[in-house]
Amino acid sequence: MNRLWWQAPCETPDGDTESSALAHQAQLTKPTGSLGQLEAIAVRLAGLQRTVKPELDRLWITVFAGDHGVVAEGVSAYPQAVTVEMLRNFVQGGAAISVLARHLGATLEVIDLGTAYPYDALSGVQSLALGPGTANLCQAAAMSEAQLDAALGAGRAAVERAKTNGAQLFIGGEMGIGNTTAASALGCALLGVPAARLVGPGTGLDDRGVGHKTKVIETALARHRQATAPSEALRCLGGFEIAALTGAYLACAQAGVPALVDGFISSVAALCAVRMNPSVAPWLFYGHRGAEPGHAAVLAALGADPLLELGLRLGEGSGAALAVPLLRQACALHGEMATFAEASVSDRPA
Amino acid sequence: MNRLWWQAPCETPDGDTESSALAHQAQLTKPTGSLGQLEAIAVRLAGLQRTVKPELDRLWITVFAGDHGVVAEGVSAYPQAVTVEMLRNFVQGGAAISVLARHLGATLEVIDLGTAYPYDALSGVQSLALGPGTANLCQAAAMSEAQLDAALGAGRAAVERAKTNGAQLFIGGEMGIGNTTAASALGCALLGVPAARLVGPGTGLDDRGVGHKTKVIETALARHRQATAPSEALRCLGGFEIAALTGAYLACAQAGVPALVDGFISSVAALCAVRMNPSVAPWLFYGHRGAEPGHAAVLAALGADPLLELGLRLGEGSGAALAVPLLRQACALHGEMATFAEASVSDRPA
Repeated sequence: MNRLWWQAPCETPDGDTESSALAHQAQLTKPTGSLGQLEAIAVRLAGLQRTVKPELDRLWITVFAGDHGVVAEGVSAYPQAVTVEMLRNFVQGGAAISVLARHLGATLEVIDLGTAYPYDALSGVQSLALGPGTANLCQAAAMSEAQLDAALGAGRAAVERAKTNGAQLFIGGEMGIGNTTAASALGCALLGVPAARLVGPGTGLDDRGVGHKTKVIETALARHRQATAPSEALRCLGGFEIAALTGAYLACAQAGVPALVDGFISSVAALCAVRMNPSVAPWLFYGHRGAEPGHAAVLAALGADPLLELGLRLGEGSGAALAVPLLRQACALHGEMATFAEASVSDRPA
Repeated sequence: MNRLWWQAPCETPDGDTESSALAHQAQLTKPTGSLGQLEAIAVRLAGLQRTVKPELDRLWITVFAGDHGVVAEGVSAYPQAVTVEMLRNFVQGGAAISVLARHLGATLEVIDLGTAYPYDALSGVQSLALGPGTANLCQAAAMSEAQLDAALGAGRAAVERAKTNGAQLFIGGEMGIGNTTAASALGCALLGVPAARLVGPGTGLDDRGVGHKTKVIETALARHRQATAPSEALRCLGGFEIAALTGAYLACAQAGVPALVDGFISSVAALCAVRMNPSVAPWLFYGHRGAEPGHAAVLAALGADPLLELGLRLGEGSGAALAVPLLRQACALHGEMATFAEASVSDRPA
């Protein structure tokens, strides 16, 4: 595979179908615009799926897990063992994303890109063993070039499986103790802002912890200030699962599969994907604006208008999964409501 | 039936069950608070349903329709005939709420309290014929006392049917050309604010139309300034479907059935219900903050924290229906996620 596969052009949304969908929508028995954000979503999906009445029955969720060398700096409220413990929870059905996937009828796959604690093979977890977590980004590049390529490729491979299985929407989730630190560092590098602009409590740091995390990120940003290309910032400051998400979004756009982005970490990966290849943007939907304070800034940079704002800060793809029913309802309304003519309802005077 | 049935005390949420649900939630495999608003919803529902793991499988939706004499003042973008035309659309399955009810597996019933255009009997529409719409509230009280009692009672009767059929959540919807004018007038009376504070475009007035609507509402408020009791404000300024919604919320709280409130008009009815009997409040959930500018003020007065903000302004109960999957997901997560002990996942150090 060409190392730089992600530079290839993405699929182009079908403007004609989008126009037809918009014309159809204007005939539905409701005041124009009264379904708000859901109207634009149905029309966008029509253009992406190249059909006037889009559907989102088949949903694919891949959770990418990885550990982070930066946890040695004491940046997380939870012990690093949790990353692997949660892998088992994902496949045994007890994690939030497991519950949501089951209720949505979604395929859920779990990829361990590289974690710090050895474990016996877990049925349902694909282990790629890129390393025992990333290097500590305060001291070195988080990933080697080979690791970055492998992680991006793992994201691409997940999307290929999704597409082969007919998925109409892809959700990437992440798990990795310490990954709000890596994502904040990467986000700061991509946006050119100081650590304090994006940093937050993650899974639950107190104010003192957030202050320390800010200093750790500033140290990392100073060490890797030469990493100005988005892919190089991703390699130096990111993480295995963040790179896999980035690769997945790039591959979704190239494969013509819409993706629904989850929270802060996923959104930083989405920003990185869009910076690496701007034609990714039309393929991304955003599930929610989360509690992590940096999320709003990253979403603003993406021009994103997320569906939910519920104070979520779990990750795993859970916030995207929570928004799926809204996308499905947008499709159902668009596809099944009667037109003014069909229902013999008077439209407003032109 | 006692005319003042709505003054009787409401059911009381079970604080012990709520505490047990909160303790259960603290053991689930996620950082504390990371499911944001959904956590409090599951715990509240536990207290209302008196079970640690609440469920919302059985959902009941009643759409109340009525016409408004105030449309003679030219306050709506749509002709009054649309109220009856939409009745047919509701029961034939082509309206937004029909599509959503179908996908949610909800029972949908349609009550015509009193509309202006005669029509042949429609299968699925219960016609109560309280009058050919309300009186023009600029010139007279919108309803007689008998009409108000009948409309409140119609809401109560709907909730009784819902409860008899085992409904775990009640949604009231409304349809009535002109009803943002009535709801704005009633909301202003309840909140003691001028018309300009709540008035908006409704189904689609332009700026000039909104200005005219404001004057119409000011005229009505001046005429009925003696109507200070909430039930009297409802009678003079409300509408059949608004009173039915008010009666439904009162009856939900008395019957111990949680209600999910829809948009601006429903929220004004909810405010009226809470002013008529403050013990209604714990039984009300709020689906969304809509596009009608007055909605935010009414929600604030209710201390409501709605789930969605999507720029909706359709009514029919549609915004509440759109939020149902979030409530169901909140219950599923609360009821089905593994605990730290069950999944052998490390909790954060205490």
